[in-house]
Amino acid sequence: MTASAVPRLDLTDDAVSLTRQLVDIESVSRNEQVIADAVETALRALPHLAVTRRGNTVVARTELGRPERVVIAGHLDTVPVNANLPARLDAATGLLHGLGTCDMKGGDAVILRLAATVTEPVHDLTFVLYDCEEIDSEFNGLRLLSESDPDLLIADFAVLMEPSNAMVEAGCQGTLRVDVRTRGERAHSARSWRGVNAIHAAADVLARLNEYVARKPVIDGLEYHEGLNAVAIRGGVAGNVIPDECVVAVNFRFAPDRSEDEALTFVREFFEGYDVTVTDSAPGALPGLDRPAAKAFIEAVGGTVNPKFGWTDVARFTTLGVPAVNYGPGDPILAHKQEEHVEVAQIERCEQQLRRWLQEEKA
Amino acid sequence: MTASAVPRLDLTDDAVSLTRQLVDIESVSRNEQVIADAVETALRALPHLAVTRRGNTVVARTELGRPERVVIAGHLDTVPVNANLPARLDAATGLLHGLGTCDMKGGDAVILRLAATVTEPVHDLTFVLYDCEEIDSEFNGLRLLSESDPDLLIADFAVLMEPSNAMVEAGCQGTLRVDVRTRGERAHSARSWRGVNAIHAAADVLARLNEYVARKPVIDGLEYHEGLNAVAIRGGVAGNVIPDECVVAVNFRFAPDRSEDEALTFVREFFEGYDVTVTDSAPGALPGLDRPAAKAFIEAVGGTVNPKFGWTDVARFTTLGVPAVNYGPGDPILAHKQEEHVEVAQIERCEQQLRRWLQEEKA
Repeated sequence: MTASAVPRLDLTDDAVSLTRQLVDIESVSRNEQVIADAVETALRALPHLAVTRRGNTVVARTELGRPERVVIAGHLDTVPVNANLPARLDAATGLLHGLGTCDMKGGDAVILRLAATVTEPVHDLTFVLYDCEEIDSEFNGLRLLSESDPDLLIADFAVLMEPSNAMVEAGCQGTLRVDVRTRGERAHSARSWRGVNAIHAAADVLARLNEYVARKPVIDGLEYHEGLNAVAIRGGVAGNVIPDECVVAVNFRFAPDRSEDEALTFVREFFEGYDVTVTDSAPGALPGLDRPAAKAFIEAVGGTVNPKFGWTDVARFTTLGVPAVNYGPGDPILAHKQEEHVEVAQIERCEQQLRRWLQEEKA
Repeated sequence: MTASAVPRLDLTDDAVSLTRQLVDIESVSRNEQVIADAVETALRALPHLAVTRRGNTVVARTELGRPERVVIAGHLDTVPVNANLPARLDAATGLLHGLGTCDMKGGDAVILRLAATVTEPVHDLTFVLYDCEEIDSEFNGLRLLSESDPDLLIADFAVLMEPSNAMVEAGCQGTLRVDVRTRGERAHSARSWRGVNAIHAAADVLARLNEYVARKPVIDGLEYHEGLNAVAIRGGVAGNVIPDECVVAVNFRFAPDRSEDEALTFVREFFEGYDVTVTDSAPGALPGLDRPAAKAFIEAVGGTVNPKFGWTDVARFTTLGVPAVNYGPGDPILAHKQEEHVEVAQIERCEQQLRRWLQEEKA
């Protein structure tokens, strides 16, 4: 790619226009090079920031010698395109439509606006824009950065700008993926009674899922909501063969009062009698609302605090010892939906609140 | 392919050796060109036969002016390779192992031996070796031949050399394939209660299949045995998305006292409430043991007459107005199994019985 092919991001534009610019650079997971190039180029033009690039993850830091440091982070990737590009602004409703408007280029735009304009923050700032959040954690840019350059993530507090309706969402649920496997014995389907049908055997696996009742524990005053779902099923050898294997891929979203091990124990007991293999696992994060940094942030931005249902990299910050919350524009219910959109007013409110916190809190 | 690359089949060899030669030419459905070339070359070397090639189907006919004509037919293709090539002869047990030994290159070898050696049959003979029997009927070489060259299939009786333990199997069951579809609504799996899981909805489809009780009607003294089975299942969008569709591919094997329409009505009622779409359908064939041609053949070869469970092209001959039976070496239970094999003695018995019928019946 030639340098001239890098789209230019105009950081003097308002955050809504900047969201549109980011949305119109398609960046489905594993295809973030162009957007990362654009972000890196824009940030390197700002003299008050030190920029580091690792893969398609870009880090920009102030070095002002402030007593505390805050990370503000967002992922650059989206789920697959679903006939929802380019961005479309509906002036009548104040909604910006399109893939990533909600999850989470509105938040990314706020990050870039703050990076460009808050040159004298009360805390030192570390802006992180990273890749591969929407796919298996082995690819996650924030995870890779925490391993390659852990010093870049040292901080006293972190704000992850995942969609949360411009309100603070604390903690997050963990996620575990397993394959539940049934086995049978192949035979010609014309003499099916000579074989054992592994797909028929999966009826019981699905019946158990239908009987599942979600646990909703209250932690630090916040009600979480677990979920256990088949996200894929596959089986079959040929149109005239009784299948000898069926695999149900199950995703367990668990409240942060369970560890990964406890979540796996629950799933293994739930599917007792079946072969269960783990394909992906990430811990939840307790809300941590008792920590001073979290309290100070919540006082500054105000509003209600809600629980976070979806897994976010808040859990990763928690594991790194950095207290963290979710706070960003966009309704999380719209994430990964074809009709994804964001209220323009939420983008503006997030930028305003964060700016006030970073400029005035200790002024 | 150059002419020299066509494997040479030695029709002066015995039928067991010829079976091995045919097995060692891999010919999974849609990959029959090499074996068809070898068969065509071998048959064209026989001056008493008129040979026609259509696609990968080869027809060889005597033109002796006999009052009656008999078709002897077999398919050249096999199901996919499953670590069961090349052929392996176990002299101690008298078993020839390998893909296609049973279904149905033993029968093909008998056909080629008869074609080479029975030069003065009591009936005119039409030998048909065809492709794509093991896959959807749209590709079936015998079907295509019946449309392109119906005159080549005119006959008074047909013997299809599908595996039947060297005993006459009469009639055959029909086969119907449908997709049974459940629908739901996508949502992020972190907030699964906002969506409707189409895979969970398939639990009821599979539960109905588990409750199915097979009908076993007796027709012309033969007991058939129906079967209703899922042969494939698929569903899933992504590891973090509640799936909005699940498709169960179901195969119904029905006794020949039901028409294709009646079979479909049964399946639609069985899956009432679900979206059912037909993907493949082929009629069964009634045993027809009351027809003179069938009676004469059965008297000549002797032994017990059994019902045919699997669908075979006997049904196609029946539709064309040609009375037909299955008669060939190999245990049909072994068809499509990894450990497929054939008793050498059955190959020899089939060749011997057919030769006696064709040479002496009216002598």
